Amino acid sequence: MKGFENFVPFFTLVISLAALLFALITAKKIIKFPEGTDKMKEISKWVRQGALAYLKRQYKVVGIFFACMFVVLVVMAALGMLTWFVPFAFITGGFYSGLSGFVGMKIATLSNGRTANACRESLNKGLRVAFSAGSVMGFTVVGLGLFDLSTWFILLKFVFKLETAAIASSMLTFGMGASSMALFARVGGGIFTKAADVGADLVGKVEAGIPEDDPRNPAVIADNVGDNVGDVAGMGADLYESYVGSIISSLALGYAAFGSLKAIALPLVLAGLGIVASIIGTFLVRTGESTEQSTLLKALSRGTNFSAILIAVLSVPVTYLVLGAENLKFCVPILSGLIAGVLIGKATEYFTSDTYKPTQKLAKSSSTGSATIIIEGISLGMLSTVIPIIIIGVCILVSYFVCGGKTSATFGLYGIALAAVGMLSTLGITLATDAYGPVADNAGGIAEMAGLEADVRKKTDALDSLGNTTAATGKGFAIGSAALTALALVASYIDKIKEVALKAGDEIVTNFDIMNPKVLVGLFIGACLPFLFAALTMSSVGKAAQSVVVEVRRQFKEIKGLMEGDGEPDYKSCVDLCTRSSLKEMIVPTIIAIVVPIVVGVVLGYQGVVGMLAGATATGFLLAIFMSNSGGTWDNAKKYIESGAVGGGKGSDEHKAAVVGDTVGDPFKDTSGPSINILIKLLSMVSIVFAALVFKFHIL
Amino acid sequence: MKGFENFVPFFTLVISLAALLFALITAKKIIKFPEGTDKMKEISKWVRQGALAYLKRQYKVVGIFFACMFVVLVVMAALGMLTWFVPFAFITGGFYSGLSGFVGMKIATLSNGRTANACRESLNKGLRVAFSAGSVMGFTVVGLGLFDLSTWFILLKFVFKLETAAIASSMLTFGMGASSMALFARVGGGIFTKAADVGADLVGKVEAGIPEDDPRNPAVIADNVGDNVGDVAGMGADLYESYVGSIISSLALGYAAFGSLKAIALPLVLAGLGIVASIIGTFLVRTGESTEQSTLLKALSRGTNFSAILIAVLSVPVTYLVLGAENLKFCVPILSGLIAGVLIGKATEYFTSDTYKPTQKLAKSSSTGSATIIIEGISLGMLSTVIPIIIIGVCILVSYFVCGGKTSATFGLYGIALAAVGMLSTLGITLATDAYGPVADNAGGIAEMAGLEADVRKKTDALDSLGNTTAATGKGFAIGSAALTALALVASYIDKIKEVALKAGDEIVTNFDIMNPKVLVGLFIGACLPFLFAALTMSSVGKAAQSVVVEVRRQFKEIKGLMEGDGEPDYKSCVDLCTRSSLKEMIVPTIIAIVVPIVVGVVLGYQGVVGMLAGATATGFLLAIFMSNSGGTWDNAKKYIESGAVGGGKGSDEHKAAVVGDTVGDPFKDTSGPSINILIKLLSMVSIVFAALVFKFHIL
Repeated sequence: MKGFENFVPFFTLVISLAALLFALITAKKIIKFPEGTDKMKEISKWVRQGALAYLKRQYKVVGIFFACMFVVLVVMAALGMLTWFVPFAFITGGFYSGLSGFVGMKIATLSNGRTANACRESLNKGLRVAFSAGSVMGFTVVGLGLFDLSTWFILLKFVFKLETAAIASSMLTFGMGASSMALFARVGGGIFTKAADVGADLVGKVEAGIPEDDPRNPAVIADNVGDNVGDVAGMGADLYESYVGSIISSLALGYAAFGSLKAIALPLVLAGLGIVASIIGTFLVRTGESTEQSTLLKALSRGTNFSAILIAVLSVPVTYLVLGAENLKFCVPILSGLIAGVLIGKATEYFTSDTYKPTQKLAKSSSTGSATIIIEGISLGMLSTVIPIIIIGVCILVSYFVCGGKTSATFGLYGIALAAVGMLSTLGITLATDAYGPVADNAGGIAEMAGLEADVRKKTDALDSLGNTTAATGKGFAIGSAALTALALVASYIDKIKEVALKAGDEIVTNFDIMNPKVLVGLFIGACLPFLFAALTMSSVGKAAQSVVVEVRRQFKEIKGLMEGDGEPDYKSCVDLCTRSSLKEMIVPTIIAIVVPIVVGVVLGYQGVVGMLAGATATGFLLAIFMSNSGGTWDNAKKYIESGAVGGGKGSDEHKAAVVGDTVGDPFKDTSGPSINILIKLLSMVSIVFAALVFKFHIL
Repeated sequence: MKGFENFVPFFTLVISLAALLFALITAKKIIKFPEGTDKMKEISKWVRQGALAYLKRQYKVVGIFFACMFVVLVVMAALGMLTWFVPFAFITGGFYSGLSGFVGMKIATLSNGRTANACRESLNKGLRVAFSAGSVMGFTVVGLGLFDLSTWFILLKFVFKLETAAIASSMLTFGMGASSMALFARVGGGIFTKAADVGADLVGKVEAGIPEDDPRNPAVIADNVGDNVGDVAGMGADLYESYVGSIISSLALGYAAFGSLKAIALPLVLAGLGIVASIIGTFLVRTGESTEQSTLLKALSRGTNFSAILIAVLSVPVTYLVLGAENLKFCVPILSGLIAGVLIGKATEYFTSDTYKPTQKLAKSSSTGSATIIIEGISLGMLSTVIPIIIIGVCILVSYFVCGGKTSATFGLYGIALAAVGMLSTLGITLATDAYGPVADNAGGIAEMAGLEADVRKKTDALDSLGNTTAATGKGFAIGSAALTALALVASYIDKIKEVALKAGDEIVTNFDIMNPKVLVGLFIGACLPFLFAALTMSSVGKAAQSVVVEVRRQFKEIKGLMEGDGEPDYKSCVDLCTRSSLKEMIVPTIIAIVVPIVVGVVLGYQGVVGMLAGATATGFLLAIFMSNSGGTWDNAKKYIESGAVGGGKGSDEHKAAVVGDTVGDPFKDTSGPSINILIKLLSMVSIVFAALVFKFHIL
């Protein structure tokens, strides 16, 4: 179909608007549900206000950062090191990424209480409300992402009349805004949520001996706020970044491979169709009244599986139509990306769900105390990196060689980028099932705090448990796509450097031999970055949690009658405390992620940067899986013990040991682990934006 | 000096014999010291017998492995894939490495009680005995190492009359025996010692509330045996391997760079002179009666500093004489290696010693329980990777570029290999101060069990504390040299592949571009290996420790009057148990380390192998530092709390939390961390030995 590719950005623009409309309609439906008892309304309000207050202050801090970076980018544009679009695209990327998080958080805080209330009627209703909330977030993310890309594409092509090469090259630099925003949101939200969670648990569960989500605990509202600003808003900004990042890297590599608009069109069309498939999939999600996990899981899987199969089937004719019969092989990476995402999710599930042996054995190791459960949990997390690395390895090799990488590397690299796009094509619905989790979790919290019937609590618990499983799958996609996208971005960086060199009339060494000491030392430094990043974020959680502990202890001591249920705890002070400390603590890690690639580039040159990016991608992938899975398996081992399957149940020595594991796992799985996914892409994005600078000024 | 290089192997042979003689004389001196009271003699005998029994059985298991590998190597030699020397050198390397461990263990178990007894007379005598024991081990290791290399060199050159090229190439393959033996010893010993330690602590300290080293604890002898088979015998085999590995890789790269015997001679001469400098240094170690750590540390540092400065000064004229004035720059990497080793040791000390802030702050975090101390300890360990990686990075860049790597890569790579040799040149004395630690530790245990006076115990405690600091420095050298040696071995592997290809008349791609998917996937897999390895070894410790817990609990229950001090615990059953489980558990990790490089080579080809080796070196270095330092800082934070500086001292909640940290840290720092150092070199050694096989048969 000739000329077809000119319509593609308009096609995706329409689809992106449809996604946003679908999100809006779903949100309106949710709001029609009643909020429940007065107590429930009050709690929901507390959580909503706290979350809103946090986000407002976060955006203020981030706003200052964006203003400074904007100035830097404008200066660079004035010096001819960037096109003039970059500073503005930087802002829009950051804005939409933040907006994705904001909308997700807003709808989640509106749905938490409603989910709990819907569970009083039926489990299916509860599931529908929580899943709908997830859908709003999912389709806002993909809708805004595709909207941002489509509008810029149209602007560059039809308003500014840029050449295709310039479009691909410009759009590649557009990811930095989204990535920076995502890192701020993930790190800040992640520190908030875990500081509150760990702090609440340490004093509440361990010292005072009151149950989780007990309204007497002054940190309990902060804990719930944290779920929304960390797990929801953070995740929204994060996946917006993944989605946009995977598409723009494939645009750039597509142009490098084919030198035409066709290869740019393919990922866009795919993303558009993925949204359609996801919307259809959401209608298949419904369940009966059985709280059996397998039944509930089937309800959700029906939707995600349908969407995935649909996009898999469509990928063949789409590739045929866009790239022509001779390039049909390019549908293989799309499929292999999809399959790899599912398999990594399954592997994650195997290592973290208590229906499988590893977590069950971990729960048993609690009988010899907290030290053994920590040792075993770390060991399990490290072990769980092996299968995903093999899956990603096979996916890379298949994508590269099937697409003809042997004869021309650019085709192979485009294949790798397409694998990432394939993996994320159904993000609308996978994110819906993922974001559903925190909503169900919070619904349980509200049910507990509002003193709803045991029967309702049982339903919310069932929904919450399901959330843990879908979170595992979601993480599979997030981590897998991060690795593939990061690699595609490294390849794009190399193209960028070539482009810069060509412009300057210079020749460059396009060989990045691993034994070249610049590449090698870059590799070492890059490999170290995820460790540094994890160290900083974990220590931030530790610091912030300790301040929460001090505050909660103070309230227990100073507020009379609090433990007896007569006094009113000061929820707001805990929320404030978490807000202040998480905002303070999120700055240094993010600045490091931006400054280090520039410093490495200036010292070691672009060869060092390539080494750094490869090293960071490899250890980042491993560390993210290790930390997420260790955290997940500790969490579920604790739940397994609570269920009475092993050990003496709640309050037993085994349970206490498991709580220590769970607490250690909190920053692992919800702060450090997920932030690393963003880190490895932000490093590439920064490198790409500062490529011209590094090319001009470097020591070695 | 013409023809000088022909005398070098004889010179080193003489020096190696001198080192062994020095070790023998020192050992004889130690044995003259009295063993102390009957009770002390009895305990020493128990420990000695247990350790000997373990080693005998370990060597049996390892013997089977060596027999099988010998057959494999003979077959490969028959097929022309190896020279006929390799199978035999494989055996001698393994034999001497094992012998190093055996001698070290033997002398340590003879010195433990004597050190405790000497402390009854004076602190200086105690220090002298313990340090002498360390010296015996140190000089046995370097003596046997240099003896092995010298005799082979003489055999190949003067008996079999091989060309220099063939000598360099053959000797490169000689490291695999030592590496395999080292890995067995480190993993097996590491599992033994930590299973006993963790098991003894879990039941003794935590459940039964009896102090460490209490003779009522049935696992207490196993714990002491473990210190000897793990920390001493394991360390001996380990550093034998490092020493030999660093020298042979520099031989091969030296020949590749200069094409003559001269560059082969330099590292050998350096090693020989390092032994002389180390022997002189040992005479400077003596102290007064102050138990002040700084005074004691000065006593040891006097020796190590003197040796280091002497070899630094000598390196300039030696380089001048061996390589000529025009190549004087090759003394720079030697110096930079020495300095890097010292600096990494200092960084390790900063992060793990309780005289600095990090460990003090960690100790304070115990006030909020075991979860926070675990989070902070992991964070600290990860953070502590940053400085060493920068040091190694600078060392690599300096060594490479100063030696002319910019114009010819082979010179630069030879520079990197020389840095490793420089770092390990004074191994004789650094190992003496390192191996001194476990002896002092055991002396304290024996003093406690034998019920010696508090005054004596204070002296042994002071010596033990000092041991923790020297262990930190020793680890700096072990980890730093492992990274440099591993890199030199990767470079040697590439040379080997070129040689194989040349022989086969094939051309090879000598470009290992990091974006080549074979290299990249190799990199991912390699980066994963240290994680897998750490996971397996930690889980082995967990498993073995749990079986110890069950046994100790059984004895407490079934043996009447045990807790009251009337019954006799069955020490032997715990020793047996640890022996059986550690021998069982050490097999799988070692087999993996040998099989994976072959499988990766067969699937991805030699490009994949290079990627794998680089990836394993990067994450192996990071993970080893992280795990060693986390473990070290937990250990010292616990001791800091015990000293009363923070928290409520022994038995307080803070102390209990710190004990959990220490227990988690045990397998970190004494099993997984140090094994990874060997792993990264064994991977290269295996790859080198199987290079011809992989070159012939590979899929991609």
